[in-house]
Amino acid sequence: MTQAWWQQACRAPDEAARAQAEARQLQLTKPAGSLGQLERLAVQLAALQGRQRPSVERVAIGIFAGDHGVVAEGVSAFPQAVTGQMLGNFVAGGAAISVLARQLGAALEVVDLGTAQPLQLPGVRHLRLGAGTANLARGPAMSAEQARLALQAGRDALLRAQQDGAELFIGGEMGIGNTTAATALACWQLDCPAAALVGPGTGLDGAGVAHKAAVIEAALALHRPAIVEPFDALQRLGGFEILALVGAYLACARQGVPALVDGFICSVAALAAVRLNPDCRPWLLFAHQGAEPGHRRVLQALEAEPLLHLGLRLGEGSGAALAVPLLRLACQLHSEMATFAEAAVAERAP
Amino acid sequence: MTQAWWQQACRAPDEAARAQAEARQLQLTKPAGSLGQLERLAVQLAALQGRQRPSVERVAIGIFAGDHGVVAEGVSAFPQAVTGQMLGNFVAGGAAISVLARQLGAALEVVDLGTAQPLQLPGVRHLRLGAGTANLARGPAMSAEQARLALQAGRDALLRAQQDGAELFIGGEMGIGNTTAATALACWQLDCPAAALVGPGTGLDGAGVAHKAAVIEAALALHRPAIVEPFDALQRLGGFEILALVGAYLACARQGVPALVDGFICSVAALAAVRLNPDCRPWLLFAHQGAEPGHRRVLQALEAEPLLHLGLRLGEGSGAALAVPLLRLACQLHSEMATFAEAAVAERAP
Repeated sequence: MTQAWWQQACRAPDEAARAQAEARQLQLTKPAGSLGQLERLAVQLAALQGRQRPSVERVAIGIFAGDHGVVAEGVSAFPQAVTGQMLGNFVAGGAAISVLARQLGAALEVVDLGTAQPLQLPGVRHLRLGAGTANLARGPAMSAEQARLALQAGRDALLRAQQDGAELFIGGEMGIGNTTAATALACWQLDCPAAALVGPGTGLDGAGVAHKAAVIEAALALHRPAIVEPFDALQRLGGFEILALVGAYLACARQGVPALVDGFICSVAALAAVRLNPDCRPWLLFAHQGAEPGHRRVLQALEAEPLLHLGLRLGEGSGAALAVPLLRLACQLHSEMATFAEAAVAERAP
Repeated sequence: MTQAWWQQACRAPDEAARAQAEARQLQLTKPAGSLGQLERLAVQLAALQGRQRPSVERVAIGIFAGDHGVVAEGVSAFPQAVTGQMLGNFVAGGAAISVLARQLGAALEVVDLGTAQPLQLPGVRHLRLGAGTANLARGPAMSAEQARLALQAGRDALLRAQQDGAELFIGGEMGIGNTTAATALACWQLDCPAAALVGPGTGLDGAGVAHKAAVIEAALALHRPAIVEPFDALQRLGGFEILALVGAYLACARQGVPALVDGFICSVAALAAVRLNPDCRPWLLFAHQGAEPGHRRVLQALEAEPLLHLGLRLGEGSGAALAVPLLRLACQLHSEMATFAEAAVAERAP
């Protein structure tokens, strides 16, 4: 059997560039380590980009959207039509990620993997793998062929971004019901009960959260016996946009483009990518820890060191976009600060 | 006895603008509360600036520098000459805060309150209140007159910034030995022992930290009986640059300019400002929680909600500068996102 593209070798970080960047950090006019996490970030970006002085000026944001059959179980506070309505808002410039992309000078691409009602919106790339996923509470969310196409859609988005010169890729997601799919996946990945990870998503109340947990628990009981490999879990419990994120992250690692991972759903996709191909892990940077309760656990499993803790729970890639200025400033401090020798500043007493 | 300027009334936040901003947040195309801390930040800035749509494009950074007599007790990892050398680095553009100010398009003013060796550096405002402070381990750090002049220096810096149109003020500090002075002040403010707050500053080892704690404990024993009011604590335990920060924060509250507070030393100055005049508190926004162990305790006493947790311990105002993009993006999201009505997106089910 031939190896799937996502199982093939990832690019290795450049250890010579990492060592050069570490040496430079020690010469800059500040106490060693005093820029904390930003120093580690600059060094990691140097290793990923293969240059002593990294840069993330050119940022590409790809938003993946899809509907979820599991919404029929009453797991969301918002009506399903919002998925498609927000696609329009993304390209019209009124959504949070639209404002952020504009302010950051980032390229924004919106990919519709399959809304419940067919849409034709100028500026949106419509792929339409289905009229949303099937209801994962009753059967597999998608076919194996749909799963492969969704992974490929993420890869294609990353290849377009790289073609346009992206130095950093951000994946975002939109899909009413997708915290249910992501939580189900995370429960399988972490082998823990739904009650330990489930949260309000866009705004369920306590009773709604309890119902959502019951729906997820029943779905896990239904699918667990049939899941042998990580791919099976994605096909049975995932969503089109979640699989597109997985494909995009794996493609980042294969193509050598650092990815900045957004919130809970993106982090579940990142963990799925690592389970499919562990060598992709160094290419994943984590922007923030959000409000959804399961996010902390997923980040722990990834040994992630998120940059922000702002109680975000919006999605769309917005939390990753908010962290971009920190990455840029980390790079600029690394590149532009004077060394002790250049500034004639005394180093610490020996 | 006439009231000192810093005891006079502060500007009150605009509650009508706050209510307008809160109402607008609820209409934006995102689940209510999903931008977490950034929503509260935008609303608070609206109240402080008295407009439904706040803005922090014009940022002024004032760095206050001074030397500390307590360095004679061996409390710092770096030689005292570094204070002056870094003044040169600030204006030459090679320091962290210089890089950050340039990237943010912020105005940077460098004020020398008194280095141990007299300096004359182009681009630095030399006030020279003394050849550094006296050794607080042996007697008061400064005279009452020096303390008043240092507070006034901070106020003057803020008035210049406001004259130039600043919508946000950041104070920074430089002074070898100043974590010792700030920790002594914090111990008095929080009524707790030095061992509970002391830390490595720019990089002391374990033995150095223990020695620093002993120096602070002895100084507190020496000065406590003579400290009646918060002003006395500042005069006896403070530093010129610390008092300038206190004066700047109090002036921010009197003049109606929001202040973004940097790390441990700035937060101790902010707590001192609140002790001198509690009405200044709403004008103080907190950028980050840093690595110095006492910082968390001081922020708790201020009921502060810092934006970043990056393990920073550089000073210079650098942590506050790093948080500026988050403030700007919070304002831009607040101002530029579409409402549900404008974007024809359905609100949550009733």
